Amino acid sequence: METLVVEAAPVNLRSDNVAGVAPEILAAIEAANAGTAPSYGADPITARLQDVFSELFETRCFVQPVATGTATNALALALIAPPYGAVYCTAVGHVHDSECGAGEFYTGGAKIVPLAEEHGRLHPETLRAALRKAGVGHTGRVQPAALNLTQATERGTVYRLDELDALVDVARTYGLRVHMDGARFANAIAALGCRPADVTWRRGVDVLSFGATKNGAMGAEAVVVFSEELAEPLRFRARRAGQVFSKMRFISAQLEAYVQGGLWLRLAGHANTMARRLADGIAGLPGVHLAHPVEINEIFAQMPRAMIDGLLADGFGLYDRGGGDVRLVTAFNNTRDQIDAFVAAARRLA
Amino acid sequence: METLVVEAAPVNLRSDNVAGVAPEILAAIEAANAGTAPSYGADPITARLQDVFSELFETRCFVQPVATGTATNALALALIAPPYGAVYCTAVGHVHDSECGAGEFYTGGAKIVPLAEEHGRLHPETLRAALRKAGVGHTGRVQPAALNLTQATERGTVYRLDELDALVDVARTYGLRVHMDGARFANAIAALGCRPADVTWRRGVDVLSFGATKNGAMGAEAVVVFSEELAEPLRFRARRAGQVFSKMRFISAQLEAYVQGGLWLRLAGHANTMARRLADGIAGLPGVHLAHPVEINEIFAQMPRAMIDGLLADGFGLYDRGGGDVRLVTAFNNTRDQIDAFVAAARRLA
Amino acid sequence: METLVVEAAPVNLRSDNVAGVAPEILAAIEAANAGTAPSYGADPITARLQDVFSELFETRCFVQPVATGTATNALALALIAPPYGAVYCTAVGHVHDSECGAGEFYTGGAKIVPLAEEHGRLHPETLRAALRKAGVGHTGRVQPAALNLTQATERGTVYRLDELDALVDVARTYGLRVHMDGARFANAIAALGCRPADVTWRRGVDVLSFGATKNGAMGAEAVVVFSEELAEPLRFRARRAGQVFSKMRFISAQLEAYVQGGLWLRLAGHANTMARRLADGIAGLPGVHLAHPVEINEIFAQMPRAMIDGLLADGFGLYDRGGGDVRLVTAFNNTRDQIDAFVAAARRLA
Amino acid sequence: METLVVEAAPVNLRSDNVAGVAPEILAAIEAANAGTAPSYGADPITARLQDVFSELFETRCFVQPVATGTATNALALALIAPPYGAVYCTAVGHVHDSECGAGEFYTGGAKIVPLAEEHGRLHPETLRAALRKAGVGHTGRVQPAALNLTQATERGTVYRLDELDALVDVARTYGLRVHMDGARFANAIAALGCRPADVTWRRGVDVLSFGATKNGAMGAEAVVVFSEELAEPLRFRARRAGQVFSKMRFISAQLEAYVQGGLWLRLAGHANTMARRLADGIAGLPGVHLAHPVEINEIFAQMPRAMIDGLLADGFGLYDRGGGDVRLVTAFNNTRDQIDAFVAAARRLA
Repeated sequence: METLVVEAAPVNLRSDNVAGVAPEILAAIEAANAGTAPSYGADPITARLQDVFSELFETRCFVQPVATGTATNALALALIAPPYGAVYCTAVGHVHDSECGAGEFYTGGAKIVPLAEEHGRLHPETLRAALRKAGVGHTGRVQPAALNLTQATERGTVYRLDELDALVDVARTYGLRVHMDGARFANAIAALGCRPADVTWRRGVDVLSFGATKNGAMGAEAVVVFSEELAEPLRFRARRAGQVFSKMRFISAQLEAYVQGGLWLRLAGHANTMARRLADGIAGLPGVHLAHPVEINEIFAQMPRAMIDGLLADGFGLYDRGGGDVRLVTAFNNTRDQIDAFVAAARRLA
Repeated sequence: METLVVEAAPVNLRSDNVAGVAPEILAAIEAANAGTAPSYGADPITARLQDVFSELFETRCFVQPVATGTATNALALALIAPPYGAVYCTAVGHVHDSECGAGEFYTGGAKIVPLAEEHGRLHPETLRAALRKAGVGHTGRVQPAALNLTQATERGTVYRLDELDALVDVARTYGLRVHMDGARFANAIAALGCRPADVTWRRGVDVLSFGATKNGAMGAEAVVVFSEELAEPLRFRARRAGQVFSKMRFISAQLEAYVQGGLWLRLAGHANTMARRLADGIAGLPGVHLAHPVEINEIFAQMPRAMIDGLLADGFGLYDRGGGDVRLVTAFNNTRDQIDAFVAAARRLA
Repeated sequence: METLVVEAAPVNLRSDNVAGVAPEILAAIEAANAGTAPSYGADPITARLQDVFSELFETRCFVQPVATGTATNALALALIAPPYGAVYCTAVGHVHDSECGAGEFYTGGAKIVPLAEEHGRLHPETLRAALRKAGVGHTGRVQPAALNLTQATERGTVYRLDELDALVDVARTYGLRVHMDGARFANAIAALGCRPADVTWRRGVDVLSFGATKNGAMGAEAVVVFSEELAEPLRFRARRAGQVFSKMRFISAQLEAYVQGGLWLRLAGHANTMARRLADGIAGLPGVHLAHPVEINEIFAQMPRAMIDGLLADGFGLYDRGGGDVRLVTAFNNTRDQIDAFVAAARRLA
Repeated sequence: METLVVEAAPVNLRSDNVAGVAPEILAAIEAANAGTAPSYGADPITARLQDVFSELFETRCFVQPVATGTATNALALALIAPPYGAVYCTAVGHVHDSECGAGEFYTGGAKIVPLAEEHGRLHPETLRAALRKAGVGHTGRVQPAALNLTQATERGTVYRLDELDALVDVARTYGLRVHMDGARFANAIAALGCRPADVTWRRGVDVLSFGATKNGAMGAEAVVVFSEELAEPLRFRARRAGQVFSKMRFISAQLEAYVQGGLWLRLAGHANTMARRLADGIAGLPGVHLAHPVEINEIFAQMPRAMIDGLLADGFGLYDRGGGDVRLVTAFNNTRDQIDAFVAAARRLA
């Protein structure tokens, strides 16, 4: 048994998007291939999706499947921020530093304002301080319009419900609408053990980027809006952005299979568990320091250079961010043995 | 045998994008699912694709796989038209009337200028006349920047090589760069029996929208640029547009399988043949009139209302454009029997 | 007396914007130069302007002084058309063919749709026909959002009140909001002899481009909005467009002087009268044909080539549009003698 | 004599744009009003301006007069940064925090990146550090495109020639093009005592915002480009932005008079001298602290609250920035007596 582990290919933890497609989702794609179907979202699967998501979120909502997480975020921001608006996020916010200015593009040139974070989380007082000096009503200044929150955050942490309440409270005081970037929404929900509605519209979220690709889909993301008035602009902005697939059924089928029977939470829960196991395995090693609490499937750690180089030489995949900083991301399909092999290698190199 | 035909589901000819995925392409997707792969296009399949397409086009070119045909067109136009530019196309051009202003969005507000067409084709003298009165150098007028040609056209016709030469000649006289919308590029190449290079860069095309989805892919399109200087802006504009898939390998795998061993031309050739068969079958019927020459897999016909209603009642799919105008589009996987059944039904209803 | 006419410089009728500044307006600029004043529109003159215009239009309205007519139009359209919207105008609409795509720029890429006109006027049925086939609700199509009407039109004609009612009625049926391009608004009001309110908000106009430059101002235009909800976006969009002058008092002073005591209508009325006199003078000449009814200060005429060349050789200014088409525009400060000299020269050359 | 000073209206030092128009410039406007002139910049004064500025800058350059400083900056950035570009400036840069996102609007959504400054100046190492981690070539990141330098800075300091060399050297290493925001360019040149060419194209500046309004013009700014290739996009982008005046002669006349015979430097030199006098007068007062070196016509000071309130109560104008921070800006037409009266009042209130 141990021999098998040693001989298996070393696990690639560079990102969760290096993983392939979950079998259930691939099967749904294959099943969707039967016969013909109306295009551009007029197919039965996409129609069903509206109900599936409305049930999942316990409220009537509208779902627009799109190509990428960047597209979901940029479309979401364009729905709630005018061109002369300011969008507040953290300095590590994906919308700020990882999407090549998609937010600026889709909004028509809104300003994305990065704020200080701690372990990836924005503190309500940080937001309040920024809004106080934002120059509301002063035409020389872009006007506060939207709050972008990433749940789970870019540092692998999760906002608790009371933290969301405090943030949205500040946001509402200044008239901001709220966007939640849920690229790893499943991992957050699995970690919190709450209902999807509890971290979204019940907390005041207006629009959600619902990610599936990082958690076992092939390429399926969705913008979810919780009010009717946002549905129409979303449909047209998505089409205009080249984000409406002609053979939409294949994207919708992924999303349907993803949430059906709770698959998404099982996959995410597993990835979270693997990250926990990995974190516990390496936490005590000499020279290893966890940079942020491990709350979902991401581990940010400081490692000795020799350990990093050794792991890479052994064929393990990780994101070497320089200066001894590494990111390890577990995926829905990592096995215990893979994780244990990684830990064993790290221990050997310590 | 005839019994079987009668009992089979009536064919859906509403569009070629109602069809599913070709088996070879679905197999390539499944094969791509093995193991992990670098994301955002750093995977081996996407790397290979650059060579595969360079070989296919007999010149070094750069391929950017994206989500939709709308995205390919809008990105292409943004590469060759400044915000103060004019893009010339036909009045039935997809970039003008079917993409919800994507071209305007991606270019930053260029003007798309529709010109009169005949059977979907733009005549060089129509273009020349428009350019003569375009006000070159007059700051009150948007400046001629790009020519958009759809090959095959939105009316199911194909530009011959000498027609392309004449058009590009006019374009070059006025300094226009040339974009070819090849949503049905395969059908055009299959119809012309020429090499892909012959209708693109050898004719002066700067950038090509290379479609695959309508011809058997699941969702895979590509922007192909034929000069190095356009490759970098393309990469960044695509990312910024939310068009760069994290699990790019699944798109690239479709494109690779699509062109491998000439699959794309076999599929398109078959669709073209089916359209020919269908056109021949209905052309002589009372009240039926072919509106345009049938050169690829699309048939535009005038039909008696009773025939249209009868076909629809029988379960056949067609695009009822009103006023007796219908569009019939054959797909890569239509069978002779399906086509014959359609013809038989039409005959019965005539 | 006649000697004097002959010796005076020949009048320049190329456009009304070749004229200088009316003495009353220049005096207002000079008066505004006393002392210091708060910048960016916080000065007393700009504050007064809100009341002056509200009184003029007999309703509470909001005025934003800006640099150019192009800016007024583009800002106005951006207030009422989303990026995925369609703006309907005539084929000779200034927003379509004379502003280098400013409308597309400011709206974030809306589509400006030119419709057939007669003597510069749009017919309600033309608009209705376009809207019927616009594809409302179809995401592939930009969505009808705004109607642009030029009053007076680009062909020197004026919409009567009942014509405006009919147009706005169609517009409202399709949910369009209405923009009036009033580059020559004064000439239209002078011609109609009605109140400014009668052709604007009482007819359903949402936003007005109020021109002054062509009628005696140095450089002063204003966007006027008739509902509170448009005022805030206007203020921010104007600033963001670089259209808010730091020394705003000098623009506002022009606008105040312009409307004070009815100066604007006296100036426009005079220009209209001069055009009438000119039209009457040349209408009967051999080879001269008036292309459009002369209702304001613009004359569009067909003239013999020798007459055009002769007038130009004599030093008269006119807009030679080619093919024997000329445009003659009278200004607020043209004299009877100047007009008579023009007519005399034309008669001599006939 | 002293009586007169006491009785004169207290000076308004809130900004230099609260001042009116210099007599020479008003006279030029009045002179430009003679006769008719071609519109949209085809007039003789605008034609002359090209030569006047080319002589002033000792190189062939192209000048585009526009309405506002915001417009000059936004146009300039649009010429040198693509939509997917990053523009580096300081955290107090006018393009970043005082123009309502005009830079984002005109560039089509480029990202404006604020960097730490000292006394308003950017340090080359700060720029280098930012560029090192900018992710050049990484499609997830906007790409470094332009450096924005304000000369004189927003804190009233001036870059010396060697400081500019060091900054441009870093910029060139990373392929950035350089924009100089010269809203107070005259004050900087007067302070440095160098030639305009020495701080612009000789240092590597590609495009200059040339301000005149703050220094005695009514409303006249210009974009100056030092290479032919930028002239054409500038002309069309300006028109499209609604920045090309129909009666351009009145803007060009201001700019011509402004530089003629060195007027601009005399006006700016005087304002600088007045600021020096004021700074010297208040520097030693109890509780008064100069926040930044006084190098042009701006003084940033910390003052006791009672002094600020007293000055305001006395009718003096200043910019109360809160927390005891004030800005005092002298203008071209402030008198020694006005300054001395301000100092006397401050002394009395100390």
